[in-house]
Order: sequence, then C-alpha cells, then structure tokens
Amino acid sequence: MTESKPISFARGAPSLDIVAVDELRAAANAAFENDPAGVCMYGTAIGYVPLRDWIAEKHGVAPEQVIVTNGSMQADAFLFQEALEAGDQVVVEAPSYDRTLLSLKALGAELIPIPLEDDGIDVSALEAAIEAGARPKLAHIIPNFHNPGGCTLSLAKRERLVALAREHGFLIFEDDPYVDIRFAGEPLPRMIELDGENVVYACSFSKTVCPGIRVGYLVGPADRIARIVKIATGTYISPSMVSQAVVNQFCRSGGMDGAIATVKSALRERSQVLCAELREQLPEATFVEPQGGYFLWIDLPAGTDGDALFVAAAERGLAFVKGSDFLLEGGHSSLRIAYSGVTPEQISDGVGRLADAYRAL
Amino acid sequence: MTESKPISFARGAPSLDIVAVDELRAAANAAFENDPAGVCMYGTAIGYVPLRDWIAEKHGVAPEQVIVTNGSMQADAFLFQEALEAGDQVVVEAPSYDRTLLSLKALGAELIPIPLEDDGIDVSALEAAIEAGARPKLAHIIPNFHNPGGCTLSLAKRERLVALAREHGFLIFEDDPYVDIRFAGEPLPRMIELDGENVVYACSFSKTVCPGIRVGYLVGPADRIARIVKIATGTYISPSMVSQAVVNQFCRSGGMDGAIATVKSALRERSQVLCAELREQLPEATFVEPQGGYFLWIDLPAGTDGDALFVAAAERGLAFVKGSDFLLEGGHSSLRIAYSGVTPEQISDGVGRLADAYRAL
Repeated sequence: MTESKPISFARGAPSLDIVAVDELRAAANAAFENDPAGVCMYGTAIGYVPLRDWIAEKHGVAPEQVIVTNGSMQADAFLFQEALEAGDQVVVEAPSYDRTLLSLKALGAELIPIPLEDDGIDVSALEAAIEAGARPKLAHIIPNFHNPGGCTLSLAKRERLVALAREHGFLIFEDDPYVDIRFAGEPLPRMIELDGENVVYACSFSKTVCPGIRVGYLVGPADRIARIVKIATGTYISPSMVSQAVVNQFCRSGGMDGAIATVKSALRERSQVLCAELREQLPEATFVEPQGGYFLWIDLPAGTDGDALFVAAAERGLAFVKGSDFLLEGGHSSLRIAYSGVTPEQISDGVGRLADAYRAL
Repeated sequence: MTESKPISFARGAPSLDIVAVDELRAAANAAFENDPAGVCMYGTAIGYVPLRDWIAEKHGVAPEQVIVTNGSMQADAFLFQEALEAGDQVVVEAPSYDRTLLSLKALGAELIPIPLEDDGIDVSALEAAIEAGARPKLAHIIPNFHNPGGCTLSLAKRERLVALAREHGFLIFEDDPYVDIRFAGEPLPRMIELDGENVVYACSFSKTVCPGIRVGYLVGPADRIARIVKIATGTYISPSMVSQAVVNQFCRSGGMDGAIATVKSALRERSQVLCAELREQLPEATFVEPQGGYFLWIDLPAGTDGDALFVAAAERGLAFVKGSDFLLEGGHSSLRIAYSGVTPEQISDGVGRLADAYRAL
C-alpha cells in the first residue's frame, strides 16, 4: 500500500547514533593495555573483579553480594534456577516482559498475573490473591519505566511490596535495566535498598553502554549470590572478561556519565515527540507519559482489534508489538511502542501511519 | 617445608606470554571501527554473523549448521538441554573432563563410563556395554589431546564410533577444543566429517585466541542447531557481540595463524621438557606422550596413594589435579599435569618436586 521506508516501533534497542562507539573503542584499547592478564585469561563466574567492585561500590554493598553475568537475561536464568522449582507460584505483572514470561513458563512455574496500574503493580490485587490462597515463591517486578507498560512503581507501593514479601516469605526479583535512563521526575529508592534480605536486584549495561556488550548483574544476599555463582561456574566457568573489562574501563574513565547524558537527552526528546504526536494524531489512545526508559504502552478503545491494527500498520510500513504478546490473556486493544531506536521525524511519521491504520479498521 | 615459589601444574590455561595481546587489542579496535552497529547493537543467538560465516567456511558447512556461543561450555549446556532428559544414558570417557561429568550428573543423566586407552576410548568396551543392554542417547568424546588423558583418538576408532552411533541411534558429542594445537603427528579427520547426521561438534577459541574472550561454537545438523538457537535465545538473546567481533577480526586479519604458531611452538617445547624430565626424575611414571594440547596423564605404580601425593606435593609448593577428580571411581594412583601455563624451567623444577614428594610417601 505504501512505498515509504519502513519504521519500527517494535525493537527495544537504542539507535546507533546514541551509542558512544568511539569511547567504547578507547575503553577496549585501555582494557587490553592496562590489564592484559585480567582480560585475556580465565576469570571466574563472579565476573571481572574490578567491574564487580565498581558495581558493589555503586550500590553500597559488599562485592560478595554481586555477580556480573553475560547480560541480565542470563542473570535471570541463573536466579530462577537457584530459587524456583517446577510448580512454584510466581507473581508476574500484567503486562510484563514477554521473554521473562516465556522463561518462567519453560521452568514450569505457575504464573500469577497481577495487573499494572499507572503507578506500577496493583499491590491490593496481589494482597487479595495472597488472601485467597496464592503462595508465591517469587514476584517479578520491573520498577522503573516498565517494559512494556512504561509506568514506574511508586514509593508507597515499593514499601508495601517489601513488607508483603517479608510477611509472606517470598522473594522480590527487582528487574531494573532502565533505572539510569530517567529523563523526568525524581529517582526513587530501589526495593533492595528498602530490604536487603527479600530482594534480588538485576541491572544491565545494555541501555547505558550498548546491548552488544552483553553485561548484566545481580545484587542480593551474599549466601544466595554464592549459590548462583556455583550455578554460573557449572554453566560457563566465567562470563566474557573482554566485554566486562571494556565496561569497567568505560565506567571508570567517565565515559559512562557522558553516555547516559546523551541517551537521556535523546530519549526525552523522542518520548516528548511521541506523546505530543499521539495526542494530536490519535487522541483515542490513552497512555502514561514515561519518565524514562524505552517504552510507551497504548490502550485503544475497548473492542479495537489489535491483530487487525497490526496488519493494517504493517501494510503502511509500521511495526509495533501487540499488547497481547505481553499478557497471558487479553491486551487485544493495546500495543507497545518502543521509541528508543527511532528519530523524532520517524516518530511523527510513524504515529501518522498508526493513526491512519487505526482509522482504516 | 619449602620457601620456593609455588608452581601450578593444575590449571589448564595458557601463560600470558603466549597470548597475542597486542594483536587482540588491534582486533578490538578494528571491530569497533569497521562494524560499530554489528558490535554494539543486539545480535541474535546464532552469534556474530561474520564469525559464524568464517566458522562455517572453515568446516565446509552451511552457516545454518553453526551456532556461536559464550564459550564452548555454554554450548555444551545448550546441547545437553536440547538432547537429553533426566534418566538418559550417556557414555563418558574414563577419565574425562570433570566439569562435563558434573554438568551431566546435574542433569540427572545416567553415566556409562568407558575406559580410555592410549589411542582413545575403548570402543570394544563400548560395544560390549551396548551388547549387555546399555542404550546410550549420547556419547561424549574428546578426540584430540584429551583432557585429562592427553591421548588422541585413532582414525580406526573414529570410524568404528560413528558406525556404532549410526547403528544404535545415539548422538556423538565431539568435544574438540584442542584440535588446532597439534604440535606432533598428522591431523585426523573429525568424526563430524565422517558422519554429518549423528555427530555434533564443539570447538572453542579459548586455546587459540585466549580464554577470557569466551567464544565457542557448535556444528551440527541444521534442524538440531535451530532448536539449540531457540534455547539460546530464551537464555540470553545473544552472546557477546563484542567478544565475537574481536575474534572475527583476529581470524580474518591473519592474527590467528600467528597465534596458533606461537602456542604450538611453546607447547611443543613444554611437553618435550616435561616428558624428558619425567623419564629422568620419575621413571616410575607411565604416560602417553601428547601430540598436542595442554595435558599429560600420569599413572604411578598401583597402590600409590594419590591423596597423600597431592598433600606432599602441596607441601613442596606444587599443585596438580588428582586423577580421581576425573573419574566416577578409581584413579587414585594417577594425576593430570597441565603444562600449558608453566615455563620449561618451572616444569623441570616442578617435576623435581613431584619426584621428591613421591619418594617421601
């Protein structure tokens, strides 16, 4: 139907123009120059020691509370292997990150979906589920700039969640890859800062350094981290020392601060353009304006056929991810827009195509 | 007992002097320079495409038959996840690589140990086990410069093994990280070259580039590789593009050829010194002279107390790995010596300490 260039609102990835390629190249050079043995030789499953120390200092914890992995999804996999058995109940947000849902299902976990609200998971609904007999072993929570929800968990809810976890003996898995890309509002305390016993925290350098580097980490109680280190040793001996040493140099040289400033400023603009264009071109859409991160979640009027919208958008050269992909059921009139990899011009154009597709339904 | 500097015959790792650090730094520089998007952005679980292509060409297979992973142990883990269920019978060599034995046991596999001979696994013993009712689903075979055995599988046995696998419907896992470090004798065909259907082949760049890079790969039938790619996607989305792009540059720039020549020449010398010193200082030791790789396996006279020898050696500042660590049972009068990370001087000195410890038992 259209000859225009395709636009993707689908992929949660940065565009190359906001990646600090030259600084990364310099960091790689410095890593081989400064610590050839640390970079080239076998490490251990705890990760590259200087980077582990940097992370521990950032979080104000002992190094023994940190494991650095090949990306944070690998960290999730290790945590799930350590903490869960088939049949265990796991609280997930609805909607939530599709890959996490798939991993948990593959492990045979029984998922308990709890709806997201504008300020994060509906804690009252979780309380009600527990009162009705749910016995979760773990709750997977994405606190900041939710993927796909775009929302951020309020402080009050963070406090209620850790109190609930303590009371009912479940583990909170605080999955926080976007935290450092806040471009509006004030940072909130991490749940692991509110309760160091019942929370394991995951973060990643994919959104601040670059995704191809595959470096993520967990912070948690030292005994649990030690068990996870054993699993990691048995899986791959050690993660990539080369990747982790590059990140370490990048963090310690100050390259990180510049990179985060670049990413924040670009994403702020992209998010603002997206919200403005949606209000103007597709006023039927309701959404929470993001305070950071990559994603915005759109609800269209009930009854909107998301599958048909997906096809109509594709015919106009626009890709997005259907809301239903992030939910165990429902979500058919919702969609996720990733604004991280598109320019303001592409965003205006893309929203135009989305509105056009919607009107053609 | 001694004030002398400790010597380790324990760790199967190269010494830093035989790692091409400067060439690796140049390769890292070139990777960021030549393909910033490929290095920095998300890849997929198949691995960094140009490296996958290079590997496919090296092996004369289609790229769809290759997956490049974060180290070959991770590749093993994916293969085991794809091919095995708890309770499956798996043939392992006795002795064999301890981490593989641990992984297989953790998966609940029933291990069928088959002894190693000077020319590799005792195929007649495997045939007898099958005749006696064993129904292996997989056989784990380290064909070249065995870890810990030091031996190499003969061509005749390679042919008998693939015929057995075809006849009895089991998969051969050809685990071959040392193949490119042959410093004596003639290369033999890979089993996957003898039978493309019943063999999955694993290799690594740990021994030719460096261990800290964590890049390994599998070659196998395209349908099986596709299933493994799915498992890898669910585990970590993609391996480290940075590590793999560095390896790709290293391979394509010719750095690899120089690196292999350096490693071979150093290991040839170390192995020769080790064998000569053992013959002179510890004539009670019997061993197969390695044609490549990192390891030499020593049998001491029956009844030698390996645990006591380990302690006596440690008292003299010498570390090795006990033979019993590589076996489900037995091996108490055997030990593994890794000569990859020690200089000829350290080897002479270390064998002296070993002989001294042995005489003190």
